Amino acid sequence: MQRCDTLIYADWCIPIEPDDRLLERHAVAIHDGRIIDVLDAALAQEKYRANAVVNRPDHVLIPGLVNTHTHAAMTIFRGLADDMALERWLREAIWPTEERWVSAELVRDGTKLAIAEMLRAGITCFSDQYFFPEIAAEAAADAHIRAVIATPVIDFKTAWANSAADCLSKASDLVHDRYVDHPLISSCFAPHSTATVSDEAFAQLRVVADQLDCGIQIHLHESAQEIEEALAKTGLRPFERLQKLGLVNASLLAVHCVHLLPSEIDAFAAAGVAVAHCPRSNLKLADGVAPVATLLDADVNVALGTDGAASNNVLDILGEMRTAAMIAKVQSDDAEVMPARSILRMATIDGARALGLAHEVGSIEAGKWADLTCIDLNRLHSQPIYDPRSQVVYTASSEQVADVWVAGRHLLDQGALTHMNSEDVIIRAQEWRQRIAAV
Amino acid sequence: MQRCDTLIYADWCIPIEPDDRLLERHAVAIHDGRIIDVLDAALAQEKYRANAVVNRPDHVLIPGLVNTHTHAAMTIFRGLADDMALERWLREAIWPTEERWVSAELVRDGTKLAIAEMLRAGITCFSDQYFFPEIAAEAAADAHIRAVIATPVIDFKTAWANSAADCLSKASDLVHDRYVDHPLISSCFAPHSTATVSDEAFAQLRVVADQLDCGIQIHLHESAQEIEEALAKTGLRPFERLQKLGLVNASLLAVHCVHLLPSEIDAFAAAGVAVAHCPRSNLKLADGVAPVATLLDADVNVALGTDGAASNNVLDILGEMRTAAMIAKVQSDDAEVMPARSILRMATIDGARALGLAHEVGSIEAGKWADLTCIDLNRLHSQPIYDPRSQVVYTASSEQVADVWVAGRHLLDQGALTHMNSEDVIIRAQEWRQRIAAV
Repeated sequence: MQRCDTLIYADWCIPIEPDDRLLERHAVAIHDGRIIDVLDAALAQEKYRANAVVNRPDHVLIPGLVNTHTHAAMTIFRGLADDMALERWLREAIWPTEERWVSAELVRDGTKLAIAEMLRAGITCFSDQYFFPEIAAEAAADAHIRAVIATPVIDFKTAWANSAADCLSKASDLVHDRYVDHPLISSCFAPHSTATVSDEAFAQLRVVADQLDCGIQIHLHESAQEIEEALAKTGLRPFERLQKLGLVNASLLAVHCVHLLPSEIDAFAAAGVAVAHCPRSNLKLADGVAPVATLLDADVNVALGTDGAASNNVLDILGEMRTAAMIAKVQSDDAEVMPARSILRMATIDGARALGLAHEVGSIEAGKWADLTCIDLNRLHSQPIYDPRSQVVYTASSEQVADVWVAGRHLLDQGALTHMNSEDVIIRAQEWRQRIAAV
Repeated sequence: MQRCDTLIYADWCIPIEPDDRLLERHAVAIHDGRIIDVLDAALAQEKYRANAVVNRPDHVLIPGLVNTHTHAAMTIFRGLADDMALERWLREAIWPTEERWVSAELVRDGTKLAIAEMLRAGITCFSDQYFFPEIAAEAAADAHIRAVIATPVIDFKTAWANSAADCLSKASDLVHDRYVDHPLISSCFAPHSTATVSDEAFAQLRVVADQLDCGIQIHLHESAQEIEEALAKTGLRPFERLQKLGLVNASLLAVHCVHLLPSEIDAFAAAGVAVAHCPRSNLKLADGVAPVATLLDADVNVALGTDGAASNNVLDILGEMRTAAMIAKVQSDDAEVMPARSILRMATIDGARALGLAHEVGSIEAGKWADLTCIDLNRLHSQPIYDPRSQVVYTASSEQVADVWVAGRHLLDQGALTHMNSEDVIIRAQEWRQRIAAV
């Protein structure tokens, strides 16, 4: 008998890699935070003696879900301003509220709420883009969730930094330097959009990102208005400007990409640019629908993001999966487009790849970190089960997520958070609402 | 002190009628199955002595959700055939499976699963269209849920009836006659579609429906192919044919209506035809998106339906609400279209109106049946709360539904079904899956 830390038995396992097989009555063995074996349940009983054995009949085990784009702290603004178009929503609701309220304390409380919500929803890894990224990094590290902290770069003065140069300097000191070689926290840069970052700032950013060997993510071609305004101001579409600035390469994650020309899709494919598709945010803000099937046909890597809770309004990759599958079918006029198997990859390994983590997470394979999500299918609305892959994509809600492990740590155990106090987190959020709503 | 059966206290109440007000810390008094009062919580304590007092802090009380279109028994086929276009899905997957398997027993077990799932999801009233409607009626009456049994009319022989005339005769005897004046069960006719019902059968149907003073619901303009095939066969669009047959009037509920000409929308408005909008089914089968904002602008009553679980794949009106809001915004290129308040009406009073029940249910008003749904907003992903209407539409999942009353009977109590055994229901569904999958 070989010793291991944890042995998880589930009725079904969807490892995602090396292929789209469905495993029945298998076990996953975890040691020192990593997956060391995926094997038949009967064999596992003979081979391993585990410190902790977790039995999950009627459950399906999948790689932890990856949320490639959010603004975690904005959970505090959830539902503050609905049913408004992107530019009005930003200018009349979000930016004034942020100017008045954003602080290290709000970011701490909002990020904690977001992390608790995401763990509850089976998300084991998220990429966050917001002010006070050092606070978000600390909150993620404390909660033991995996995070890619995308430190913001923006030209105007904010509560966090005075200028783009100040953003770069603070981010380098407080996040990029501090979390080198951290097992859970990594970082990249997030220039907000081409509308809010000058050529000079982009040039500085490029130098610093190269020095630190860091990726860049940016909101790109989210709304038609964004493109029109850029053309009027610079004569260039935002993506053209990024090309001229030398920022288009395999370390670029382009968020949204609702409006793309065929030539831009070709350029994405040629350069290896990845896309963070945020379908519900794009629908709710009436931005449109990203051409995901066309991107996939061109071999562009497309991952999923929730966007922030102020637009979306929940941090729920399972919900994004279902929406992404459904709208792609109508957009392509083809119900066979984006079947359950493709969506499962998009929410796991393709998300990991978009964040530069595919060698470490995104599938259930020996050697990778044990970032796992276990979903209870023994619910009225998920029964009967012809194919668990279909049930996960087309029936499962975040409240069916029973267990989550990140690097082998059992962070959600039968629906209960083990390392966070949900009640405290909610009370803090309610206190912020009282203050904000009172104005 | 006045006696009443039940007094429900909730932090918020959205009565829907007489207007879109939000009530805070109110109570709803129920007696003999009906709402007798909606009043301030402090006043309620002084005025009523109740047999049962239900306290629901952090919850919002709304009228029971109305599902205007489903095929309940098809829950047995949930996830059997995904990612296929409508016509292929029907001809290659659903119809052959139905031919092989549909029976009174399958309908009983499938309808029970559907009812349990719907109650769990806050649906208090559904319209069902399937074979063996007498079995569905019995299952609904046994479960004490409100149902409009839409008895099928179809030309070809099925397990239930030999012909359209046989459908009409059986339906009249077994459903329409039997449930006259039943407090929960009413009925209408459901010719399947213009493709599957002859002119003669429509003529007979019209006579019988007039005799019984019954509504008619029909799948209409669901796919472009349906319209093309009708034009090729008859020279008429399906709606034109219904007009010629004299079936277009205020008792017609047209299901789907993805493809409508402006002149057809005008004709709907002029005749008072209602629409059952099933957004997720239409998306998943790649049918398209019904022009809901345009229908509403024309003053057509639009209600929501889940369609059957074989296409959709869950009977979840909360999910349909969110999807309907989001796709309408993108379709109209206007994020202000279909705000949370409109969607709440669509899922309640407008659904009741589409089923001819608006005088009895669909709002929280004294005199109506106490069909109520109580949703727990004390969840990570629904916090903080600026406006509970937004939280219901944009954050709530069916598993947050805590309580359901139908005609005053407490059918779901803190998430547990009181009149059905979920485990038994699931076991029966699993037995069917084993038989069907074994072939």
